[in-house]
Amino acid sequence: MDKEKYIIDKYFKPLSKNKESLNLENDAAYLKNKKLIISTDMMIEGQHFKKDFSPVLIARKLLRINLSDVAAMGAEPYGFFLNIAIPKNLTDKWLVDFTKGLKRDMSLFNLKLFGGDLSHAPRIFLSATILGKTKNHCHERNFSKENSDIFISGNLGDATLGFMLKNNLLSLNCSNLEKNYLVEKFMLPQPRLEIGKKLNGHVDFCTDISDGLVRELSIIADQSNLQANIFLNKIPISNVFYNVVNNNKLKKRKVQELILSSGEDYELLFGMSNKKVRLIEKKTKISKIGFFSKGRGLNIFDGKGKKINIKKRGFSHF
Amino acid sequence: MDKEKYIIDKYFKPLSKNKESLNLENDAAYLKNKKLIISTDMMIEGQHFKKDFSPVLIARKLLRINLSDVAAMGAEPYGFFLNIAIPKNLTDKWLVDFTKGLKRDMSLFNLKLFGGDLSHAPRIFLSATILGKTKNHCHERNFSKENSDIFISGNLGDATLGFMLKNNLLSLNCSNLEKNYLVEKFMLPQPRLEIGKKLNGHVDFCTDISDGLVRELSIIADQSNLQANIFLNKIPISNVFYNVVNNNKLKKRKVQELILSSGEDYELLFGMSNKKVRLIEKKTKISKIGFFSKGRGLNIFDGKGKKINIKKRGFSHF
Repeated sequence: MDKEKYIIDKYFKPLSKNKESLNLENDAAYLKNKKLIISTDMMIEGQHFKKDFSPVLIARKLLRINLSDVAAMGAEPYGFFLNIAIPKNLTDKWLVDFTKGLKRDMSLFNLKLFGGDLSHAPRIFLSATILGKTKNHCHERNFSKENSDIFISGNLGDATLGFMLKNNLLSLNCSNLEKNYLVEKFMLPQPRLEIGKKLNGHVDFCTDISDGLVRELSIIADQSNLQANIFLNKIPISNVFYNVVNNNKLKKRKVQELILSSGEDYELLFGMSNKKVRLIEKKTKISKIGFFSKGRGLNIFDGKGKKINIKKRGFSHF
Repeated sequence: MDKEKYIIDKYFKPLSKNKESLNLENDAAYLKNKKLIISTDMMIEGQHFKKDFSPVLIARKLLRINLSDVAAMGAEPYGFFLNIAIPKNLTDKWLVDFTKGLKRDMSLFNLKLFGGDLSHAPRIFLSATILGKTKNHCHERNFSKENSDIFISGNLGDATLGFMLKNNLLSLNCSNLEKNYLVEKFMLPQPRLEIGKKLNGHVDFCTDISDGLVRELSIIADQSNLQANIFLNKIPISNVFYNVVNNNKLKKRKVQELILSSGEDYELLFGMSNKKVRLIEKKTKISKIGFFSKGRGLNIFDGKGKKINIKKRGFSHF
């Protein structure tokens, strides 16, 4: 059972019966008459990062996971609020580095700091609430149409390998260059803001893959009353991912799980009629990985057209 | 040294050089062209409440400390975002009660839940980001004028006595009725939304007293380049406060500290020309406690006109 979804459905959806919340089924709330989308995400020491991670990178990742929600809504970055709880004995150096990271990505993504709250706590706790500006449209639907195709941006799997390397959960034989590439994919996800904007007006739904492709797509299929069908060998992976899993002879099952059921990639997942794809695919790395059909649930096919059973559905916080 | 203010001034103000942030010197950010104010506040287990506190009351307090910022800005409650990190083994009962508390005060204050984020953590961590609607005006200034008078809403001191009783920090001889009254003032502060709205267009500044009168007023005096002068015996206290401190023979110093330097009251502190006070004082419990004059800093006078020195300036999280 997906306990996170269970808690949201049971306890919080009944409290969110308003237009702005989009029934808590999207990446952000949508204040249509204010032309704003708003979303919030946490990062907690021990859960999302370790104490010795670079504060520069922690700050940048906090902004980027929030910016990824702005991208998924097809909006433009505007500003954010920051909650920081830190141990009393945390050095000034930590704050110097943390704010250096904020400054870097605020400038890179044209993002303003609007306010926040500061407290102390035995462990570092961070949350950001981000605002994005919309014009007359954003990705406010969270369901697909029959016969729509399924697309993703970028590659999958890198971030999870990076997560495992960074946290010493997997002993892998790989070059420093490969390791740095993968760890950076985990620590500095790339919010797909340009793609998100381009998709405006063309897609049935759009979401970011924060908790794994299988989990996100299953939820969309469920909300659409449709069956999602995807093809494993159409899901793009990076050359580094390919080399590392081959050089280390990782088992097929493990590789499938890394691609299909692992979080942290922050690529966009969206549904769109095949006819419309020409409008946006120029110079944009997007890949068609499947389609929706009548039915329920999610089918995953391997290169020979055989169905794959996935045990690990994705990442749930509970 | 006020380390919280030091951290904000040194690390975060330089990142907030935008109109909306109001230089981080107000209770909320002000998105003027969107007619919104936005503020955020945290509540952390061990810092702001204990694990065994009623989840109903924790939820209601979380909303109320955020609503108090809406009141301080003279805005109207609109909606909020919620971040919840809770231990894996926390019972469903906790969530049932927590959401019961949310529901109660959402209905009482006409507040919508727009979205949030859910995670687990070894301790309960909560934050809310609240949105308030404004018309053409809100309390966006954070400084006073010379000769303006100083006012507060309600009584001071109750919440701190309640805090001490609730946390067994002070052994007091008082009736259950008195204890319940004081603890409720601590757990369920009353956001002064009506007063906040009435003050619109009439006040120089308005803020809520979350971290003690002396701390809040010293900051305002500093930002105004003025001297604030207040009279201890003009600061209203409740009958219960009066009885409890007298029956327990609390020392004068202690009583002064409870009134002047303790947090959690969430009353409004504002500056206004004496001529305007008639416009808003009907049926509104507000009290004039002093005035601004040329100079710097804060003077506190006792009943005989003698200056009082206060050691504890107020509550800082660091």
